Amino acid sequence: VTLALPSLIARKRDGRELADADIRAVIAGAAGGDIPDYQLSALLMAIVWRGMTTRELVTWTKAMIDSGDRLRWPRLRARGPIVDKHSTGGVGDKVSLALAPACAACGLYVPMMAGRALGHTGGTLDKLEAIPGFRTALSPAEFGRVLARAGFVLAGQSARLAPADRTLYALRDATATVESIPLIASSILSKKVAEGTDGLIMDVKVGSGAFLPTRAQTRALAATLIALGRRLGLQVRALLTDMDQPLGDAVGNALEVREAIELLRGRGPGDSRALTIRLGAEMLVLGKRARDVAAGARAIAASLDDGRAFERFRLGAQLQGGDVRVIDDPERLPRARHTRTLTAPTAGWVAHADAGALGRAATLLGAGRLRKEDRVAPGAGLVLHAKVGTRVARGQPLCTIRFDDPARERLARAVLADAFRIGARPVSAPRLVLARLA
Amino acid sequence: VTLALPSLIARKRDGRELADADIRAVIAGAAGGDIPDYQLSALLMAIVWRGMTTRELVTWTKAMIDSGDRLRWPRLRARGPIVDKHSTGGVGDKVSLALAPACAACGLYVPMMAGRALGHTGGTLDKLEAIPGFRTALSPAEFGRVLARAGFVLAGQSARLAPADRTLYALRDATATVESIPLIASSILSKKVAEGTDGLIMDVKVGSGAFLPTRAQTRALAATLIALGRRLGLQVRALLTDMDQPLGDAVGNALEVREAIELLRGRGPGDSRALTIRLGAEMLVLGKRARDVAAGARAIAASLDDGRAFERFRLGAQLQGGDVRVIDDPERLPRARHTRTLTAPTAGWVAHADAGALGRAATLLGAGRLRKEDRVAPGAGLVLHAKVGTRVARGQPLCTIRFDDPARERLARAVLADAFRIGARPVSAPRLVLARLA
Repeated sequence: VTLALPSLIARKRDGRELADADIRAVIAGAAGGDIPDYQLSALLMAIVWRGMTTRELVTWTKAMIDSGDRLRWPRLRARGPIVDKHSTGGVGDKVSLALAPACAACGLYVPMMAGRALGHTGGTLDKLEAIPGFRTALSPAEFGRVLARAGFVLAGQSARLAPADRTLYALRDATATVESIPLIASSILSKKVAEGTDGLIMDVKVGSGAFLPTRAQTRALAATLIALGRRLGLQVRALLTDMDQPLGDAVGNALEVREAIELLRGRGPGDSRALTIRLGAEMLVLGKRARDVAAGARAIAASLDDGRAFERFRLGAQLQGGDVRVIDDPERLPRARHTRTLTAPTAGWVAHADAGALGRAATLLGAGRLRKEDRVAPGAGLVLHAKVGTRVARGQPLCTIRFDDPARERLARAVLADAFRIGARPVSAPRLVLARLA
Repeated sequence: VTLALPSLIARKRDGRELADADIRAVIAGAAGGDIPDYQLSALLMAIVWRGMTTRELVTWTKAMIDSGDRLRWPRLRARGPIVDKHSTGGVGDKVSLALAPACAACGLYVPMMAGRALGHTGGTLDKLEAIPGFRTALSPAEFGRVLARAGFVLAGQSARLAPADRTLYALRDATATVESIPLIASSILSKKVAEGTDGLIMDVKVGSGAFLPTRAQTRALAATLIALGRRLGLQVRALLTDMDQPLGDAVGNALEVREAIELLRGRGPGDSRALTIRLGAEMLVLGKRARDVAAGARAIAASLDDGRAFERFRLGAQLQGGDVRVIDDPERLPRARHTRTLTAPTAGWVAHADAGALGRAATLLGAGRLRKEDRVAPGAGLVLHAKVGTRVARGQPLCTIRFDDPARERLARAVLADAFRIGARPVSAPRLVLARLA
């Protein structure tokens, strides 16, 4: 393969379509380590430039699926539909922690493979690991056991699923080739098909905290995911949701677990609860456990309010080694050593609480990673006390800053200074769900 | 540097200008091996995509020059102007072998650093090494000694000149990122400035055997070379010359040395001689050893016709270890074991003798390399007996094929079959010099 690669790269560079056999050779070579990284990264940049045709994208994604194991759940499927949710990544988005057990309580199986904090966005695995003992690295057998017993599982991606994606993803992150709609779509759907789900709700984020900058690109990604899913036999629906401000109040791992437990107790911030219910409703409709979104929403809300979703979460966490005393009493979650409060410099209405800036600030405080090898500080992060549309007096707290390392807090302070904008006139709270694509 | 590289690559990917300090860090990292190849190749592909601004290109090229040694010739310059020629690469182009000694005979110093066969184009070093004993790898001291005594030197590029270019060039070749006008221009001029020349004639090839496909790109490259040279204090002139058919009659290393010796004896094919004289005339004008191109042409032609250029070549070759008996009697040059003749399938006028196809055929016969580690077969290649515009009878020889390995000849045969096109109507010989840019 290596010999022919320069001409294959030149083909994509010049905007011509790659042959199926060439694509399969590239993906097999990426999975097997037979193609030098420098040739892969040049090809990836040419794909960012030129895109992919539908045929190329389908072949590329199928080859990624075929590069590893493929999970199948014939016995579970006989008992209930297998449906998953995936988000393109946001700030303060702890929805998965409440959504997966709520859907399980309503009769779905949710085999959710999640990721780590990346850039300024949070990672579900890092959040779960704020619960002492919680293991996110499960063997395939263990993954299946937790899924069968709890109805959901929240774990890291097995190294045996779509291994070509692992190679390519690591390279893309290091070479500024993440931002390509076909590369994003194939990365997401190859893992979801390999994980064995039948339906998928995509939560595609829009706004300053989302990683695609424009609404048009976000819509294009959603449309690509739906079309590609259809070609792969996977039902995909997409919601475009607001990520111009963080979701909910908490940003940071233990802080977000605490908010998720609030949601599972039938409480929590309105936007976090609303998005959990809406996504869950879509999942129930996709799995044919609700006749429409309204009925699905009632079912999810009931599971949050009557304790069934909480019991499911507690069971799943226990099966994955998590200390249930912490779930029963979130006061036991790790806490950061220091606290500082950011207050409103003037009176007015909060016009912007920039999700991108707040995510970067939380990352600097230790909630995320500046380098891959960094460890996260589980207690670090932010708690917002005012969101867009809130009226504030001068000196009223905007957010609480939690940190272990004062040097990091100083770094974050500069970013935080510009994160909030307070206007002189009333501002209405933004719409949470901007569009639905199917 | 590695830490900030993804955002630097993203900057170029998004079409924004890179900062001078970032460019210098990239080039220093490439020279020092501190930046992973996969990040360099992604950046190179982004540059192929987005190009470079003039400021970026000047900074990039200066950084490449500063990455290594810089030769200076104060004592030689007191005795005569230092002028060089560089070609973008062609098929059958043996001009350098006659041009450098002819210019030296007319009072110039020509410190010519040449390259090896690349793709379907020939390499001056491979040609010279067909002369038994000829050494092209010279120490800097030896390079200077030959230049001072013979007035010219033909040798490989020192590893200590523009080492960043060596790293980048090897990567570009493997990642389909050669075809970028700023990358080509910076690669050429960084080496020429480091080599210490004051003036440079560029022979920019146009046609099927040239590596830039269109006339517009060729013109753009020539204009970029001239403008960049001006910013670097290097006088550059460019001729756009025909490479739609091979130059001269011989294609292949020993075969081309033989033709070069013919040129140095005042004979040889008309187009090879004409281009040698024209390029030499431009060099004499640039070095102020001729008042205009006509006077320069007369001086170069005289040096070829009266034996002075030949004597210079013989001296230089001897100083570099070459066996002068072979230069005195070219019958002693290496010969390929086998010969076959390609004849005209119909009568008519030769309408096309495709330089790209003939170059690929010669490479397959062993005159060039399919892989970097291949050794060339010195005697292999082609001798054309008819060029564009020649009238041929059916069965008349078009070219002689020389080869050591019959298996390679079979591979080349398929390529050769389509190389010649014979038309029913008279065709005129093409113009050799298509344009001059200064």
